[in-house]
Amino acid sequence: MTDISKKKLIKAELPGGFRDYGPKEAIWKNDAMTKIRTTFERFGFDPIETPAVERTEVLTGGEEDSGKIIFNIKGSRDESQDATMSLRFDLTIPLARFLAENTDIPKPFKRYQIGEVFRGESPQAGRYREFTQVDADIVGSSAREAEAELFLLLQNIFSKLGVSNYKIKINSRKLLNNLPKIAGFTEEKLWPVLRIIDKKDKIGTDGIIKELENELSGETAKKVKDFLASDVQKMPGGEELQELPALFETLGVKNWEINLSLVRGLSYYTGIIFEVILTEAPEIGSIASGGRYDNLLANFTGQPIPAVGISIGIDRLYAGLEKLGRSEKRTTNTQVLVFLLEQSLTREYFGIAESLRNAGINTALYLGEDRAFQAQLAYAIKKDIPYVVIMGESEKAKGAVAIKNLATREQKEVSIGEIAEYFKE
Amino acid sequence: MTDISKKKLIKAELPGGFRDYGPKEAIWKNDAMTKIRTTFERFGFDPIETPAVERTEVLTGGEEDSGKIIFNIKGSRDESQDATMSLRFDLTIPLARFLAENTDIPKPFKRYQIGEVFRGESPQAGRYREFTQVDADIVGSSAREAEAELFLLLQNIFSKLGVSNYKIKINSRKLLNNLPKIAGFTEEKLWPVLRIIDKKDKIGTDGIIKELENELSGETAKKVKDFLASDVQKMPGGEELQELPALFETLGVKNWEINLSLVRGLSYYTGIIFEVILTEAPEIGSIASGGRYDNLLANFTGQPIPAVGISIGIDRLYAGLEKLGRSEKRTTNTQVLVFLLEQSLTREYFGIAESLRNAGINTALYLGEDRAFQAQLAYAIKKDIPYVVIMGESEKAKGAVAIKNLATREQKEVSIGEIAEYFKE
Repeated sequence: MTDISKKKLIKAELPGGFRDYGPKEAIWKNDAMTKIRTTFERFGFDPIETPAVERTEVLTGGEEDSGKIIFNIKGSRDESQDATMSLRFDLTIPLARFLAENTDIPKPFKRYQIGEVFRGESPQAGRYREFTQVDADIVGSSAREAEAELFLLLQNIFSKLGVSNYKIKINSRKLLNNLPKIAGFTEEKLWPVLRIIDKKDKIGTDGIIKELENELSGETAKKVKDFLASDVQKMPGGEELQELPALFETLGVKNWEINLSLVRGLSYYTGIIFEVILTEAPEIGSIASGGRYDNLLANFTGQPIPAVGISIGIDRLYAGLEKLGRSEKRTTNTQVLVFLLEQSLTREYFGIAESLRNAGINTALYLGEDRAFQAQLAYAIKKDIPYVVIMGESEKAKGAVAIKNLATREQKEVSIGEIAEYFKE
Repeated sequence: MTDISKKKLIKAELPGGFRDYGPKEAIWKNDAMTKIRTTFERFGFDPIETPAVERTEVLTGGEEDSGKIIFNIKGSRDESQDATMSLRFDLTIPLARFLAENTDIPKPFKRYQIGEVFRGESPQAGRYREFTQVDADIVGSSAREAEAELFLLLQNIFSKLGVSNYKIKINSRKLLNNLPKIAGFTEEKLWPVLRIIDKKDKIGTDGIIKELENELSGETAKKVKDFLASDVQKMPGGEELQELPALFETLGVKNWEINLSLVRGLSYYTGIIFEVILTEAPEIGSIASGGRYDNLLANFTGQPIPAVGISIGIDRLYAGLEKLGRSEKRTTNTQVLVFLLEQSLTREYFGIAESLRNAGINTALYLGEDRAFQAQLAYAIKKDIPYVVIMGESEKAKGAVAIKNLATREQKEVSIGEIAEYFKE
């Protein structure tokens, strides 16, 4: 036994860039997750789970300086000479690794996965270093209908979450990859140029022109600017951006727009890319994103397999809804508190709780030290539990309980056998 | 564009001690989680979420060599001079840290949390270095009814998961802490002795006597042996082991037994401790465990707060059920596959899928490259999807589809408006 009075206190705080979800936030997140999971399954996606930890090489693609921002991990008692290990930064690379290991899974494979991902960067305002990603991917299909399914899925999920004011920005990596040819600059300049045009929605056309002129001749920079304002119909590599809108029209996919300055950071994309923002809170950043990545599996197997996926950033979405005042208000899921007043009635109190729980009503027993009636009532009010069930010796004698609605302050006597029915109405 | 043909292939494998859950396993785990989460809420527990990452000091209790087996983490681009960070090894210490930071949460606080935990040890056969923990805790109650609630909760969860052959071993740290006085040895020997008696269920009484004789005199070792066979009624510190069984009797808690050699590794327990094993697969180890830890919050605040909790090891439970042949057999949740046969009927196929999904039926569209009828049928069979919906030009002309049950091979023509109803029966 350590003498706790002599110990130095430990500061109760998280490192920067990490956050807790208290009951109010976690209740919203759980409800959202249930809706999302159900919708994924409605659309024929099956779950998999992979660990948060992967071999570093798997995440970096084997490149020494991959530019990937990852957390490396080391066990305090791990003396093995294992390959270095790191925390995943997305769920897409682990999916590719999983499928390369499990080649017997029938394709097309529609999988969903929900899990924490990590970014090993310095703490910055408004950026989390750990967050939940909610992914759905279709592997083994190059069909345009695969993209359409994912956009319908997203539309369905947003509708179930009550999110209506959003915008899907769509672009094509195939088209962007032709930009050197279209505007007339060398392949080496592609990524520096892409990183600049990606900022268009933030710093405007004038802003990016200035930056482009540092990389390219004035004439070439103007061609890049012209590209951003041009009609995709005419451009090589823009096929997806011509075919998808027609399919969206047929199938009723809404709230999308082609945005030629959308780039997305990850290098593995090969076709359609997209990002979703809340139109009333664009400053939150993208609440969902994704695209087609037909070559990722080849890193492991040498064989490319077409794949396309979406990823929902549930923490960003929560932050957005919170900002707009549309987040959860409940701080408890508990509907009924059963008072524990008389030691001799313990069996009865637990019996009441059992019958309520069996009827599907979330029920707690009062477990505080102070068993005074007023203490129990104060607790229920503080916890925001809507109903309390009270049984003293007098109620017991009548085979009844008193049920109090804490919102209306109404109290009603109900016979023991009818408590569950009372709440069902 | 990287030329993928020239890249060195990356080995698709996990580090030792980590595992994937493929669709079959993940479907079971999701179903189990939904049942557990619902039961937690029925019992009045609310969710919280804390990150996988904590300040190292929080996890080790500030001790340099705490003996804790943790993963330390470092960001590849984290130049900040932050405190060292580590991955949590349980959900209890993060709960204590959370409550020390959020003092306004009303007590008793009943919280549940589901999350990954990590152990930074060398890979060993049968031990995972990452696994899911499923916890429910009651903080701010020293009432015996709190323990009783947790055992009822556990009983309820096992019943919902179809687990009936289990045994709850119960002991008390208060009682074990009196062992030096009872058997007559010095306080310093307490933990070495506890670590030996903890092995009793594995190596038997003779085995532990031998080891005890290396630590204690023969006479004292015999007293420890006598203690393990004695009746708790008479022993100081055994109050909980007297009161709880009476309450279990009153409330119908089953499958428990007092086991005086149960110790549990974690140092923060202060009262009742317990562990659950599958009686048909005890070699799997404990599938649930927990206990009372009244001093943990004092590490942060200086003020002890009574607390008691349970933790379910869902991965161990799955391993046990798998071993007993009672794990999930489904490899997909998808119930219906809609064939994509004619390009001109795309709108109709998506419309059928939409109406089935709206009716709560998990429906996929065929998205493979090979659109031949036989290829689509072969895919449905391989995927184990029970029904397929077929519409060619001739069915379309009749305003109908053919629905084939792949188990019975029966095929039926159903008019378009009645497809959802067909499946509801």
